[in-house]
Order: sequence, then C-alpha cells, then structure tokens
Amino acid sequence: MGGAILVLSGPSGAGKSTIIESASGKIGDYYFSISTTTREPREGERDGVDYHFVSKEEFKEDIKAGAFLEYAIVHGNYYGTSLNPIKEALKSGKLVIFDIDIQGHRLVRAKIGDIVTSVFITPPTLSELERRLYSRSTDKKSIIENRIKNAKEEIKAISEFDFVIINDEIERASNEFATISNASRLKLSKHELEKLILNWENS
Amino acid sequence: MGGAILVLSGPSGAGKSTIIESASGKIGDYYFSISTTTREPREGERDGVDYHFVSKEEFKEDIKAGAFLEYAIVHGNYYGTSLNPIKEALKSGKLVIFDIDIQGHRLVRAKIGDIVTSVFITPPTLSELERRLYSRSTDKKSIIENRIKNAKEEIKAISEFDFVIINDEIERASNEFATISNASRLKLSKHELEKLILNWENS
Repeated sequence: MGGAILVLSGPSGAGKSTIIESASGKIGDYYFSISTTTREPREGERDGVDYHFVSKEEFKEDIKAGAFLEYAIVHGNYYGTSLNPIKEALKSGKLVIFDIDIQGHRLVRAKIGDIVTSVFITPPTLSELERRLYSRSTDKKSIIENRIKNAKEEIKAISEFDFVIINDEIERASNEFATISNASRLKLSKHELEKLILNWENS
Repeated sequence: MGGAILVLSGPSGAGKSTIIESASGKIGDYYFSISTTTREPREGERDGVDYHFVSKEEFKEDIKAGAFLEYAIVHGNYYGTSLNPIKEALKSGKLVIFDIDIQGHRLVRAKIGDIVTSVFITPPTLSELERRLYSRSTDKKSIIENRIKNAKEEIKAISEFDFVIINDEIERASNEFATISNASRLKLSKHELEKLILNWENS
C-alpha cells in the first residue's frame, strides 16, 4: 500500500511527542517531518530536531522553487513543510507524521487530502493544560499565556479532524494513536484507486 | 467513546463474512446488522441469519413508523436496515457492522456520516471473482452472471469509501479489517465533539 500521511495537531502541552515516542514500537517505519522556519531558535531548541532554522532569503528561494507542501507567515516569521523528504519517505513506504497547527492542517488537506489522516491531540481540560504548561515549562509567563490563548482557539477546530485523542492517560492515548496510525496506512490514494479499478476491468 | 458504525460493501463473493469471522477475536464486541427484505428467501437462506424476511405490508408499516435507517426498492422488492437494534447496540458500546450495497452506503452516509467508517471489500480481480462464484456456488448461471454484472458497476464506486480491502489473502485482509474496525471506534460523533468543546471551555 506504500506510505501514508498522518497530520497531528493540538496545543503545545498536549503530549504529542510523548505519544509518538510511546507508540513508536507499534506503528512500523515512520518519518517525523520537521518544519522549516525563519524565526529565531528559542532557548533549548535545536536545528534539525525542533525545526530547520533558515534565513528569510533561503525560505523565499525555496518557495519560488516549489519546495514546500505548505507554508504560512505567522507574526512576520515563515513556517513551512518541505516536500522532498516527504516524497522520499512515502516512496520507501514510511508513515509520514507532521506536527502542524490547524492552519497547516487545512492547507495540507486541501492539497493532498486523499492520502491524509488527521488527529487532534488534546489534554482533557483547559485547566489541565495550564497545569502542564506551568509545571514543566521554563518558558516565560507571557509565552505560556499565549499558548493557552491559542489552545482556546484551536479546540474549536477539532471537528475538522478525522480523529481526536484525549490525552489523559498516556498508555491508552498511545494505543489509540497506534491504532489510528496503522489504519491510516490502509487508506488508498486516488491514484491507487484508479489503478485498482483499471486492473479490475482488464482482468 | 461508545459504539461506532462500520459499513461493509463489496460484491458477493468478496469474502466479507469470512473476513468478519476471522477478525472477530480482534475487534471487540460487535453487532452484525441484518437487513430486512420483502423478497422470497433463496435456497439455503435463513430468516434472522441472512435476512429478516417480512411481508410487503409489514415493511410498509415499518416505513411509516420510521423504523428504518435506510431502505430501497430493488426489482420490486424492499430492502431496509432497522434502526432499533442498532441504537441498542450502540448504547452498549458495540461496533455495529452493516453489510449493505453502494446505494445503502450512500444513504447511511448522508444520514449519519459523522459516525460511519466505510470499507469496500473486493477480490483482487474480476476473473478471480468469477472463479470464486462459479466454484463455490450452487446458484444458477443467470444469478452468477447478474452478480458479476453488479460487481462491475460497484467497483466504480470504491472512491466513495474510507477504505478498500483487497481480499487476496485472508490473513492479511482480516488483519486490515481489524485495524480499521478498531480505529473506527475512535471516531467521535458531532455530539461527542460538542460535549468535548463545552467541557474544555468550562474547565
């Protein structure tokens, strides 16, 4: 069946990376797509791990070259998803996982919706999100407050997603994630469906 | 998360019931919805197993009473899916499985699309379908020919389904079916999504 694309969204603090790590033994070979951005790295962020950090010039050249699946400008900074590593991963039958925001999800769905399965991951409640962000984070209060503000907006978009995982218990959440990931690999693209119909008719 | 609805379609001879049986230990508690029809039972068909066989009067009364999730008239015979047993099964958290045709799938999707996951099951090729139908069946040649004619039409509708399972190897096909079934249980209905958003905002 080849590869598949899984879009993950949800407030920071929802536990997305913990869920992926915890499910990694159960979902086969996957490629975690890292976004490219022109914004400055924050404390503790590493190039090639959290983001690919590039200059605005580089980013604009890449746009011209058609290198992005989707990109957006947020607070004057560019954020984008590079196409090439995704194509490579899909070719080798990997599950490609994106961690993008709800805008990114809309763009990806509009472009390649037929091979995308999307999952929104959320803590059970807003107060639990606040607790997690304040207890774990070394971020400034203003950044945390901004994340909470964003989360309030994001939650309104959950009906746009194929699945919602409520991360109140990591074991269950990661099992749910594994089940959804494995099902997403079984989704056929339009291209594969056409081939199937053709083979069928000519058999 | 409660129950979920899984719609199965595909030509007769695709191996739908074999796949369900073979996956039954891996998909949790499920209820297999049996259609109601006014047509005469064929040789070997049993009431309450293959269909609920009823009279046209009974069927029309049930229509008036709003007892069907969907119904259709094919070659002068009524076929329908009763609502009540489905509601009961969903309430008790069961996965409800329908085996209906592509028309039925369209009707169900239009009515309760938000809680439906649909799967089209097909043999790998038309010639393999012919082989299976002729080798196993006690049916008349005209009936088999009709089934093959129908299958040629049905295959054109596969892009309307969430998933397609190619049943060339029962072990793999039944594993795929189990994965899809378990993922379908994780789909939230609009109602559940609304509740989630409300809880979130009031937390």
